[in-house]
Amino acid sequence: MFHPMHLLLFYTLYYLCLKKNMRLLTVGSVAFDAIETPFGKTDKIIGGAGTFIALSSSFFNRDQRIVAVVGDDFPTDMIETLKSKGVDTEGLQIRKGEKTFFWSGRYHNDMNSRETLVTELNVLGDFDPIIPSSYQGTPYLMLGNLSPQVQSTVIERLNVRPKLIAMDTMNFWMDIAMDDLSKTMSMVDLLIINDEEARQLSKEYSLVKAAKAIRAMGPKYLIIKKGEHGALLFHGEKVFFAPALPLEDVFDPTGAGDTFAGGFMGYIAATDDTSFENMKRAIIAGSALASFCVEKFGTERLLEITREDVDARIEQFVALTDFNMGHHSSI
Amino acid sequence: MFHPMHLLLFYTLYYLCLKKNMRLLTVGSVAFDAIETPFGKTDKIIGGAGTFIALSSSFFNRDQRIVAVVGDDFPTDMIETLKSKGVDTEGLQIRKGEKTFFWSGRYHNDMNSRETLVTELNVLGDFDPIIPSSYQGTPYLMLGNLSPQVQSTVIERLNVRPKLIAMDTMNFWMDIAMDDLSKTMSMVDLLIINDEEARQLSKEYSLVKAAKAIRAMGPKYLIIKKGEHGALLFHGEKVFFAPALPLEDVFDPTGAGDTFAGGFMGYIAATDDTSFENMKRAIIAGSALASFCVEKFGTERLLEITREDVDARIEQFVALTDFNMGHHSSI
Repeated sequence: MFHPMHLLLFYTLYYLCLKKNMRLLTVGSVAFDAIETPFGKTDKIIGGAGTFIALSSSFFNRDQRIVAVVGDDFPTDMIETLKSKGVDTEGLQIRKGEKTFFWSGRYHNDMNSRETLVTELNVLGDFDPIIPSSYQGTPYLMLGNLSPQVQSTVIERLNVRPKLIAMDTMNFWMDIAMDDLSKTMSMVDLLIINDEEARQLSKEYSLVKAAKAIRAMGPKYLIIKKGEHGALLFHGEKVFFAPALPLEDVFDPTGAGDTFAGGFMGYIAATDDTSFENMKRAIIAGSALASFCVEKFGTERLLEITREDVDARIEQFVALTDFNMGHHSSI
Repeated sequence: MFHPMHLLLFYTLYYLCLKKNMRLLTVGSVAFDAIETPFGKTDKIIGGAGTFIALSSSFFNRDQRIVAVVGDDFPTDMIETLKSKGVDTEGLQIRKGEKTFFWSGRYHNDMNSRETLVTELNVLGDFDPIIPSSYQGTPYLMLGNLSPQVQSTVIERLNVRPKLIAMDTMNFWMDIAMDDLSKTMSMVDLLIINDEEARQLSKEYSLVKAAKAIRAMGPKYLIIKKGEHGALLFHGEKVFFAPALPLEDVFDPTGAGDTFAGGFMGYIAATDDTSFENMKRAIIAGSALASFCVEKFGTERLLEITREDVDARIEQFVALTDFNMGHHSSI
């Protein structure tokens, strides 16, 4: 006999099965940073694209995996923190007697330009992205900023092509490894870069022209991040413009781009929906997380906030851009 | 006896009376420009803040007035064009034997910086903004970029304070006439300036802090234009972020800010509604018009397009920013 409880049970099981499948694999640096901004200065703190992506995506998707490498100087409590956020760390290689990647940089007054003071590649110098067999079949892949050769190796080592492969990159790789970068770009669905990078990559100043040129290189989807000016999503003939929240102060921009990408991919993985409409929502989610990231040094703010804080900020984004033209054509 | 036709008649009369009252007074330069951009170069063409504002606002409000001054070198056919757009030109002084204001400038590759090559004040040097008595009682006032002393004189000469007074200004007046500017700012409701000007005026880099500081100087409403990055509207605790349409090329930015202001005030005057919600719509309308302005030199594009073109572009703005978070909190 049918009973309403059966329906509830059915949906609960269906939901759990879906959830099981909603996994995100992140490949990216897990590192130390030392940062100087006009507001202050840090000693070595925890950073790295992989760290920011995993922490950020955990607000939507607590079923995720990471492939990265650290030295044995990396604090185990941070690895425990990642685990507590639902990150499977089997793919996090810990190299005995070696040192973790270290970057140090200084931001200038307007926070839009920075100089690198120190880059010590350490374990990242010969990083071999080994994919644990338990990671095979992960439906969503986020390739944080790394050498394009490492990024393409990851894709080649996956038995099943993910539903959506997103990648970040930076000017540095355009300068020294453009052939590798072209190859990797031809293998991914979505490229997430900033406006300066888009201009360098396409040799076009207009972002509309840049977007056309870049999508001709491979990625069907392109997100151009414009920092305090928001982000643009391009796909086919469609464009979506997401605002950035106007902030009193940007305390430390380090990791904001990775936090954006992590929030975006966490949202996509959790909803298991790669439609353009859902990508818009994912961009707002990523923007909300990035707006928290810049409020304190490094990962500090991401480790303090709750999902409720994120939802409240998403509501601020809705209010910020919401308008209704109503019957304007009648005036 | 009551008949449904009475209601229709009542509303028709009511509508006509309202329309009669929906007037905009623009005070601003009517001038000649000569422009160089990476795309080309013009001889003397028609420009001036007052011209762009009047042409732009005419798309929504064909019942407007202008106070300005030209020399007898100014082409009468342009005055006829303004009249054909519903602009009452009684307040346009034509000085015999004198020359019209002339500005010449060159834009650099990124279109975000320009240098002034020539400024000939001519008739603008001793401009006395005489308000024809028929202009008294105009409910909306737009003060284009002019000396703040001229701007405040206009306000002082109006018998009835308009419902909304908006003003533009520029860095030049902050440098040489800050006291006059402070006085004028304390008399207006809405200041419309760009991000660079907002930073100079407030001595704050953060636009959120700048907006607070500037509103403390007088204007309850503030619009900060960010060029290709859109515009922000601040009022009380509320903020609205309007995007700019991503364009393939910005051919000539001259007049885009005035066109934005004209579209905004034309929309406000036509709807006779100064609520925050309606100001959002007015910003989208102004942004749509500005996006046309930059497509050709000077006023050329504004003189070609129709209201249908403007409405279609407004729809593009809606599509550009529209998103629906749906049930995101359930994921």
